[in-house]
Amino acid sequence: MFEAAELGRKVSKVAFAAAVPKLRSELLQAHFALKDAKVPVIVIVSGVDGAGKGEVVHRLNEWLDPRGVETHAFWRLSDEESERPAYWRFWRALPARGRIGIFFGSWYSEPIVRRVYGKIKSSELDGALDRIALFEKMLVEDGALIVKLWYHLSRKEQRKRLEALEADPKTRSRVRPLDWQHFKLYDRFIKVTERVIRRTDTGYAPWRLIESGSRRYRELTTGRLLLEAIQQRLNAGQAAKAAAAARPPATSVPGAAGPTILDRVDLTQALSDKEYREQLEKYQGRLSRLTWAAFEKQRSCVAVFEGWDAAGKGSAIRRVTQAVDPRLYRTVSIAAPTDEERAHHYLWRFWRHLPRAGMITIYDRSWYGRVLVERVERFAREDEWMRAYKEINEFEEELTAAGIVLSKFWLHIGKDEQIRRFKERQKVSFKQYKITDEDWRNRKQWDAYTAAVNDMVTHTSTAPGPWTLVAGNDKKFARVQILKTLCARLERAL
Amino acid sequence: MFEAAELGRKVSKVAFAAAVPKLRSELLQAHFALKDAKVPVIVIVSGVDGAGKGEVVHRLNEWLDPRGVETHAFWRLSDEESERPAYWRFWRALPARGRIGIFFGSWYSEPIVRRVYGKIKSSELDGALDRIALFEKMLVEDGALIVKLWYHLSRKEQRKRLEALEADPKTRSRVRPLDWQHFKLYDRFIKVTERVIRRTDTGYAPWRLIESGSRRYRELTTGRLLLEAIQQRLNAGQAAKAAAAARPPATSVPGAAGPTILDRVDLTQALSDKEYREQLEKYQGRLSRLTWAAFEKQRSCVAVFEGWDAAGKGSAIRRVTQAVDPRLYRTVSIAAPTDEERAHHYLWRFWRHLPRAGMITIYDRSWYGRVLVERVERFAREDEWMRAYKEINEFEEELTAAGIVLSKFWLHIGKDEQIRRFKERQKVSFKQYKITDEDWRNRKQWDAYTAAVNDMVTHTSTAPGPWTLVAGNDKKFARVQILKTLCARLERAL
Repeated sequence: MFEAAELGRKVSKVAFAAAVPKLRSELLQAHFALKDAKVPVIVIVSGVDGAGKGEVVHRLNEWLDPRGVETHAFWRLSDEESERPAYWRFWRALPARGRIGIFFGSWYSEPIVRRVYGKIKSSELDGALDRIALFEKMLVEDGALIVKLWYHLSRKEQRKRLEALEADPKTRSRVRPLDWQHFKLYDRFIKVTERVIRRTDTGYAPWRLIESGSRRYRELTTGRLLLEAIQQRLNAGQAAKAAAAARPPATSVPGAAGPTILDRVDLTQALSDKEYREQLEKYQGRLSRLTWAAFEKQRSCVAVFEGWDAAGKGSAIRRVTQAVDPRLYRTVSIAAPTDEERAHHYLWRFWRHLPRAGMITIYDRSWYGRVLVERVERFAREDEWMRAYKEINEFEEELTAAGIVLSKFWLHIGKDEQIRRFKERQKVSFKQYKITDEDWRNRKQWDAYTAAVNDMVTHTSTAPGPWTLVAGNDKKFARVQILKTLCARLERAL
Repeated sequence: MFEAAELGRKVSKVAFAAAVPKLRSELLQAHFALKDAKVPVIVIVSGVDGAGKGEVVHRLNEWLDPRGVETHAFWRLSDEESERPAYWRFWRALPARGRIGIFFGSWYSEPIVRRVYGKIKSSELDGALDRIALFEKMLVEDGALIVKLWYHLSRKEQRKRLEALEADPKTRSRVRPLDWQHFKLYDRFIKVTERVIRRTDTGYAPWRLIESGSRRYRELTTGRLLLEAIQQRLNAGQAAKAAAAARPPATSVPGAAGPTILDRVDLTQALSDKEYREQLEKYQGRLSRLTWAAFEKQRSCVAVFEGWDAAGKGSAIRRVTQAVDPRLYRTVSIAAPTDEERAHHYLWRFWRHLPRAGMITIYDRSWYGRVLVERVERFAREDEWMRAYKEINEFEEELTAAGIVLSKFWLHIGKDEQIRRFKERQKVSFKQYKITDEDWRNRKQWDAYTAAVNDMVTHTSTAPGPWTLVAGNDKKFARVQILKTLCARLERAL
């Protein structure tokens, strides 16, 4: 595979000087067009040590508009990063729409190095690569352009280059002991890399191999490949827009035909005041102990609360948090996104709040908004919310694979009970604010939401992230059911 | 001082039940008004262990609109936090305008505990408190409301309370070994606290002592004090707005009368091509070694670049970054703020990008925008940019006190040289985008900027953060001067 990048390609000084001004203007124009088209670009700069990747990063920063570029080097893990799912550090660095993120090191670095050093098996490498492919696909489907550059040197060239860097006082300190250590593993490194590139060389995010023996060739080729990729993406974007405009409007969400999963919830379940007091105390005490035990073991929790308006989400969450030390948890109320959030993939704002090791994040509404309100209100296109099930399942798999204990609650009430509560709320001065026109509008969409909830549970109730449908007509029963479930999930995990 | 909080105050169940609904409605109304008035609120919940602070946090979350509140507990330091100036963790948690941040633990916790345990001297405690007072003043002047609550228990009550918590299975795990350890130091703790409260009980951010023996009294008092503070702030805000409207418009920025500090820069300094090549190589090589040495010693750098349009900031920065491993530095181009940035104090966006230990952040334009463009273009009011000098000095003192090596460059060129470069840029296709109408507008304000630069250097060139005025008419000279200065600053620090 790498033979094509060992042909001794060069560019003369004259040809380079002649080509650069035009390339720079075109790159700048493309960069400005990207900004208007709100396309986020990720440029992955990777390859063998000593291939001049650092210089390429400098050059890109010179050629592009500095106000629209950010460079991220991934090497030292902070504890805030290591205590969260592995991709958290990449999510936090993803460029906003219209910006270019140059990734020096990326999600490829760790799997390659770990495989080269024999720390993971071949099958584990493949698993990591499948996950990369899914991640990149998700970003591309959201409109991102991913330009993956691989800088290659033959074994002989690599030695020559490292020696040259060491000989020059200006660059000597760039060569780290690790570089020579890697050099000794050159053949193994190339073998692993070839597998990595083959398996992740997808149509939506292809690899571009760059022969790196000559600086001018390498830099000119980088600029040209990047320009080409941006231009292609911009053209494709226009075509897609035209196609979308020609497409018939999304079909309306069907009302639930026949029984749904919600019909199976027995809403007559209730607790007497005495039972409630006893069980509330019992399970709050247990949860208090369990959350501290989880902290000692550095196991994190994520609890998601969704439900009908007036189903008692807020008061149920409070019965949970009353039992938990305020140092251990954070409640995140999901309202309208900020513009920084809007400028990223819709999952970005949820990644932001993932707990550190041993801590708990409670999401009061969550990423499921994508397949609930955004579906029903048509804020998301059909293809967007349809693929969200898969994206959400992958997201939650990352959480649970990282050891996070995930609980998801849908607070269910009957339609009659809802109207009763709406009316009740309007009577209590400090509850009036909770009833808005939106709640009445949502109520009219009851059937559409029922269908959406049914689909949501069908697609996303998984072994590591099961849905709990809470019988909410009796608030006391609902609260205890939630506390019990949280305790059971934690007990199983610890 | 605490005698007034040991009177055995209580509230009966009946009185509590009667008072709460009204309090809750009023709190909610106040909360919504805050949102409209875009006032950020920081509620500091502090006091002796076992005083029910956690319960107060729960209660406030219940009484306020959950969508507008966030709770932050400060205890475990992450390495991302410990590797930066101490206040970084508080800056990242500051609520946006219109939101309420409940701080469970705060900038008070560490100084108190360290003094109680004898880890700092009395004079060091006073230093920390002076710094707190300045920090709070800065936030208040920016429009924030800081509500500082101190929950007090007598020694006897504290013992009773800790024992009661331990006896109840539901709350047992809340009592940590540290709580009993603190209890043994009760008297010392009270003595230190008294000093802390006295010294930081300012008009703009007063302390409110709450007797905490009885849950109902404590919670009702909390709610009432918070409500009162918000209402006062909202009324004061309206008065201030009226006063501002009545105030005469800001005086225009005077042109520089007489010679300024910039006149002393010898713009005839230049380097021959040969000298340039030699010195560039020499100092880039040295900088490369020094930045790795700084990394090994975990010393961070911040470099600030300001200067006239077309003074060669971008290309000078590139000569610096060429010498630095891309894993070690980040360049931050300061353009228009995002809405999250706009919703905070103007320094917030710069705190965001401070480097971790051993790393370098290069700011391409910086917080000095406040006293340059914002002053000249009147984006900031006169009182705002006037007090910015002090705020900036304090900010930079925090950086340098934390061991950050700070360098600040003003790239100076003559007015004639600027016009020559504007015209030159318009001829080069990939440089045209750099010349905008704004540059021509700025040029008309040359004298106003000269005065602003003169004032800026006068007020903010300090021993730990000196300004370097770069003679920029000859780009070669300027680049070498910058590299030399950076090397010298690093050498002195290491």
